[in-house]
Amino acid sequence: MAMTMTEKILAAHAGLSEVHPGQIINAKVDLVLANELSAVVAIEEFGKIKGAVKVFDPRKVVIVPDHFTPNKDIQSAQVAKKVREFALAQRTLYFEVGRTGIEHVLLPEQGLVRPGMLVIGGDSHTCTYGGVGAFATGVGSTDVAVAWALGEVWLKVPPTIRLEFRGKKRPWVSGKDLILYAVGRLGVDGATYSALEFTGEGIAELNVAERLTMANMAVEAGAKNGIFAVDAKTESYVRTATERPYTIYQSDAEAEYAETIVFDLADIEPQVAFPHLPSNNKPVAQAGDLPIDQVVIGSCTNGRIEDLRVAAALLKGKKVHPRVRCIVIPGTQKVYLQALQEGLLETFIQADCVVSTPTCGPCLGGHMGILAEGERCVSTTNRNFVGRMGHVQSEVYLAGPAVAAASALSGQISGPQEL
Amino acid sequence: MAMTMTEKILAAHAGLSEVHPGQIINAKVDLVLANELSAVVAIEEFGKIKGAVKVFDPRKVVIVPDHFTPNKDIQSAQVAKKVREFALAQRTLYFEVGRTGIEHVLLPEQGLVRPGMLVIGGDSHTCTYGGVGAFATGVGSTDVAVAWALGEVWLKVPPTIRLEFRGKKRPWVSGKDLILYAVGRLGVDGATYSALEFTGEGIAELNVAERLTMANMAVEAGAKNGIFAVDAKTESYVRTATERPYTIYQSDAEAEYAETIVFDLADIEPQVAFPHLPSNNKPVAQAGDLPIDQVVIGSCTNGRIEDLRVAAALLKGKKVHPRVRCIVIPGTQKVYLQALQEGLLETFIQADCVVSTPTCGPCLGGHMGILAEGERCVSTTNRNFVGRMGHVQSEVYLAGPAVAAASALSGQISGPQEL
Repeated sequence: MAMTMTEKILAAHAGLSEVHPGQIINAKVDLVLANELSAVVAIEEFGKIKGAVKVFDPRKVVIVPDHFTPNKDIQSAQVAKKVREFALAQRTLYFEVGRTGIEHVLLPEQGLVRPGMLVIGGDSHTCTYGGVGAFATGVGSTDVAVAWALGEVWLKVPPTIRLEFRGKKRPWVSGKDLILYAVGRLGVDGATYSALEFTGEGIAELNVAERLTMANMAVEAGAKNGIFAVDAKTESYVRTATERPYTIYQSDAEAEYAETIVFDLADIEPQVAFPHLPSNNKPVAQAGDLPIDQVVIGSCTNGRIEDLRVAAALLKGKKVHPRVRCIVIPGTQKVYLQALQEGLLETFIQADCVVSTPTCGPCLGGHMGILAEGERCVSTTNRNFVGRMGHVQSEVYLAGPAVAAASALSGQISGPQEL
Repeated sequence: MAMTMTEKILAAHAGLSEVHPGQIINAKVDLVLANELSAVVAIEEFGKIKGAVKVFDPRKVVIVPDHFTPNKDIQSAQVAKKVREFALAQRTLYFEVGRTGIEHVLLPEQGLVRPGMLVIGGDSHTCTYGGVGAFATGVGSTDVAVAWALGEVWLKVPPTIRLEFRGKKRPWVSGKDLILYAVGRLGVDGATYSALEFTGEGIAELNVAERLTMANMAVEAGAKNGIFAVDAKTESYVRTATERPYTIYQSDAEAEYAETIVFDLADIEPQVAFPHLPSNNKPVAQAGDLPIDQVVIGSCTNGRIEDLRVAAALLKGKKVHPRVRCIVIPGTQKVYLQALQEGLLETFIQADCVVSTPTCGPCLGGHMGILAEGERCVSTTNRNFVGRMGHVQSEVYLAGPAVAAASALSGQISGPQEL
């Protein structure tokens, strides 16, 4: 039977020759991720599972403290301590403060997620790893605990929606603009429990960082996972990160899709998603005159070196608007070091930006740049729900790093073309 | 009448030819500092003062958001917003996030505090500026509000205790070790409401950063202010920072001191102050085997470029102990940039340290590295009271940057001699 790459990965991990959408399977997991917030709940649940003493395979369990670290307060310090002690006792993969980063930037960089893997994680943006051709999805902490114990996950095979991008990107358009545009077209529930498969000549042009960005936001259309075909760029990226093996699954030409949506890249300008939904997008050129208070450049969506390069190219030799706090957050220690060595951090500091240590921080209203009442922020993160980054009366506008940097300079929401 | 330099500065600002210890004076202030925490209270109090609409002189009022910035949470964001709006409306000196730093590192660096000035600030470590020969003292937010309105402060002239340091420093000993040693000798209330005047050949050898460190901790012995004679090093430091004028006051040879305490530098090894008092010091060589969880290098006490150089020299080419989170916090954006350009930040990252954006952060249990129950931290900050950096069951050990860096490497409290 012809299958999509999502179906092939699920079949292989369920020990089946084929699967079909809607089918319930038990699948073996190659990696179970948790951050400190999901881990601390999973540890409780793990303790309730009869006979669960050791995790099924400590080399397939990874714990990353990133949401409220370096510890924001006593409560988060207590959580981090509990999670650290569990990770050390269980000898799981664990990345301590100073050697860590944002989980979804860290894992691909470390070669821990590779093509053909089945990855679950206690974080909704686990779907990021579809950018390197893995099946990856976010699960609740109870599922994490069960997977720790059994090495398996219960899944319903999703139908696949095919998003085909034709033509060539316009200037200043990045993967973030494409996914904002796509989520805008689909709506926040337009792909509920579906696989989103990104295809077309426009996708082949994207670097792996942009693909990770796009897969990251598949969940913003409600998707179970987002996935990209593995090509030479993927293989080069993965081989740079690790020597560990991987398996390539490609969709069959005759695979059945629930739907195919075609996008013409000629239609897609730099985007901005207005409050309070990631789907509430429009071309930045139509944003109007909206003064801003803060810009955040970073996160699991856009905290990679490629993102920082785009922002630095615009900020170089200029100053952030005096009214604006511009907070730049490299995604991992490695990204931080590379940005330092490439001179990007110097550019940011000279431009009056804050350069933070890697953390999820402001994206989820955690710390490191929380918004006050009435404040407006342009952010390269993935969600702009009410109160997401602070006060319920604050506003978050989602964009790519080019729009974010241009807005930091002008002091209002604006595109790089306007500089 | 012969006077100490503290008395001369106070007399000049009170419009008197002489003052004596115990005398109550009204003195004109040259600068009134507030951080966001003291400012937000002072703004309330200012609003209650009949007829107070504008601050007495906006060029003599400086507001620095540094304690919980970049905003830690919604509450701190609301505070920062209120303070920002006041500063902009009053046109005071104001340093926005991305252009700011820890107040007591920032103000000397910016040339805003100079020899002979009378500075008050809504922060107990305002006494730092005695390092450049100013009279500087911390006051409550009500005093800040009154000074905003009137440009004056009510003061009782303190008696002066003279601390004379003879001889030459031993290897690895810095100003921080000297002040920990001195506070240990004096006790935390040994200099209550006195001026501490630091003198002697040992002091002349210290760079201005070390003098600022020592004056910073004068309050840890209960002192009203700490002060250093102005010499060529001071003048060079101040002239590098600013072209603004200053006045030099030196203590008369026949000035009367309440007490003179002589220290022989040959006696002073690298120090560590054990929980839970800054006076609870001993030579680090006598610390015993105490494993640690965290190291903090930064703060208004030791967040200057000279401090980071010491730490980086020890960390270069090495790795922080796997158990230890080592958090390095440059004091200001300028210190950050300089540390970046000198290669220090690269050294820290390569050694597995966190490099934070400038903030008071963990020193006061604010954010960016709060301690959990039972955790032990070596910190270059100035206070190790119960719960100061987090959980009431955590422990803070105060030290200079050399001991902090050495401890980060070894994973236990240890001196640089032991590396």
